[in-house]
Amino acid sequence: MRLDLARILVARTRMNPVFLDTPQYECEPLGDALGCRLILKVETLNPVRSFKGRGTETVLNRLHDSGAADAVVCASAGNLGQALAFGGRSRGIGVTVVASSAANPLKIERMKTLGANVILVDGEIEQALEAATRYAAETGAFLVEDSRDVDTCEGAATIGVELADLPGELDAVVVSLGAGAMASGVGHALKSLRRGTEVICVQPENAPAMTLAWRAGRPVEVGVPDTIADGVAGRYVLPEVLDDLASVVDDAVLVTEDGIVEAMRLIHVHAGLVVEPAAALGVASILEGGGRFDGRTVATILCGSNVSPTDFDGWTRGGRGRS
Amino acid sequence: MRLDLARILVARTRMNPVFLDTPQYECEPLGDALGCRLILKVETLNPVRSFKGRGTETVLNRLHDSGAADAVVCASAGNLGQALAFGGRSRGIGVTVVASSAANPLKIERMKTLGANVILVDGEIEQALEAATRYAAETGAFLVEDSRDVDTCEGAATIGVELADLPGELDAVVVSLGAGAMASGVGHALKSLRRGTEVICVQPENAPAMTLAWRAGRPVEVGVPDTIADGVAGRYVLPEVLDDLASVVDDAVLVTEDGIVEAMRLIHVHAGLVVEPAAALGVASILEGGGRFDGRTVATILCGSNVSPTDFDGWTRGGRGRS
Repeated sequence: MRLDLARILVARTRMNPVFLDTPQYECEPLGDALGCRLILKVETLNPVRSFKGRGTETVLNRLHDSGAADAVVCASAGNLGQALAFGGRSRGIGVTVVASSAANPLKIERMKTLGANVILVDGEIEQALEAATRYAAETGAFLVEDSRDVDTCEGAATIGVELADLPGELDAVVVSLGAGAMASGVGHALKSLRRGTEVICVQPENAPAMTLAWRAGRPVEVGVPDTIADGVAGRYVLPEVLDDLASVVDDAVLVTEDGIVEAMRLIHVHAGLVVEPAAALGVASILEGGGRFDGRTVATILCGSNVSPTDFDGWTRGGRGRS
Repeated sequence: MRLDLARILVARTRMNPVFLDTPQYECEPLGDALGCRLILKVETLNPVRSFKGRGTETVLNRLHDSGAADAVVCASAGNLGQALAFGGRSRGIGVTVVASSAANPLKIERMKTLGANVILVDGEIEQALEAATRYAAETGAFLVEDSRDVDTCEGAATIGVELADLPGELDAVVVSLGAGAMASGVGHALKSLRRGTEVICVQPENAPAMTLAWRAGRPVEVGVPDTIADGVAGRYVLPEVLDDLASVVDDAVLVTEDGIVEAMRLIHVHAGLVVEPAAALGVASILEGGGRFDGRTVATILCGSNVSPTDFDGWTRGGRGRS
């Protein structure tokens, strides 16, 4: 386990407070619809509309301490890039984001508005990472790698520190799983501070790389992701992140695309929030859990809301979105 | 001025924290659409989906201290009743809410789910208040009067205490005006803690009682409210609240129904939030401000999101909602 609770607590004290102490409350209407007592942790009401600012603040603060570079580069499906652009802009650090040309256009546009230099490449997130790695080698920019860079995991772990403070019972947390930073971070914080809470990762069945790897105990071959949840649509597994997850995650489950859409719709109706597909995985896992969560107290993290209105409407109203 | 900063600060320390430290951040996409630097203060992510919990917590804590009654009653268009029901339930205090039979059905339903005894009467909010007053006299229940009861104003004032802590400039706050608790509370806190910030109240032109009274310096006769913003649709002015507003409010403006709907739509698109009409008044005032806010830093309080999906869609998609 690479993560360290003391470092996480220090990171929390140094972060832009706009990302901290996010709402966490019982949403009774949504819980009633799902048959459990549901706690929402809302990470969408900040300048980048996702939880990623917690990680990028941590990366940028430590980079400032070390003085290692005055520019950064990352590969991103969108949310990491926005958060890095936001943090870099306020610190005078140049930010380059390499994204797949198939990435969410809204996210690309927001990165540019926040001042990032955006480079588009063909392929998936993994091809973007190869290009970002080359860019770093050529220019000397610091390469921020989501989940591989432990700062991104420890920043996300501050969500778990806050969840651990919830009053009353907390039987389980269902947390979206992509490359693994949020799941390992939240899992580590909860296993350190609130051991009795079950930590369950959730991934789309159409982008199951990390889940299948967690179950097998090693990376496994999967096909190209085919999910509307662009924020978690990776294909390859980082062994060090898999190791981190092994010690803090109790279960890993998969959900359908229909379940994700229905979860987005229910969150909109009962909590008044637009969330992106990757943020609805936890609610989808309760919907498709076959009664596993009935009567229990379950928290989920609404981790991002960067979705175009057209896509959102297309999915949740039975029409067609972008993919 | 009835409000007292020391009491407000004490009230804040005693409140259920689920209502406190709500998100306040610059929403750049919405600010870009409006031509200003816009700060959103989001009061909708809590168990009652509005700011009213801050006031009812304050009322109930002081009632507990005095031991004056073990039951409460209020007249409410919906949000006060929900908040009182929530606070009463956790304290074992019986809650009765008298509402107009024309009130928002979603809000009525939520009050009942939270355990309130709901009594419906014909007429407007003022007729509901008459019935609630009779109920209090007959049963000994403590009558909670929105805005007349200074606890409701001082509870709402804690929003202003938090806004005063915002980093950077804050040129103005545009705040929804109904009976006046939120406007006087936020105004008092800001004039005490951040004097340079202009405090501007906003009301629908179709429910302008308090605004016209503020301008005239005395209550004036107005017609029956005819606005979708049920949360601020009162007709009569409380003289003591008018006095409070006189010393802390710099201006009071009116907005159109079309402006309210367009503001709701923009908040949904750019911030990913469903808000009820009364919460969109501030953004509407910027839209209809004729350039008054161009380039300035302006905060607004998204004070509630209790609106049915059917109404919201009907209004923001050009169809017809409930009224």
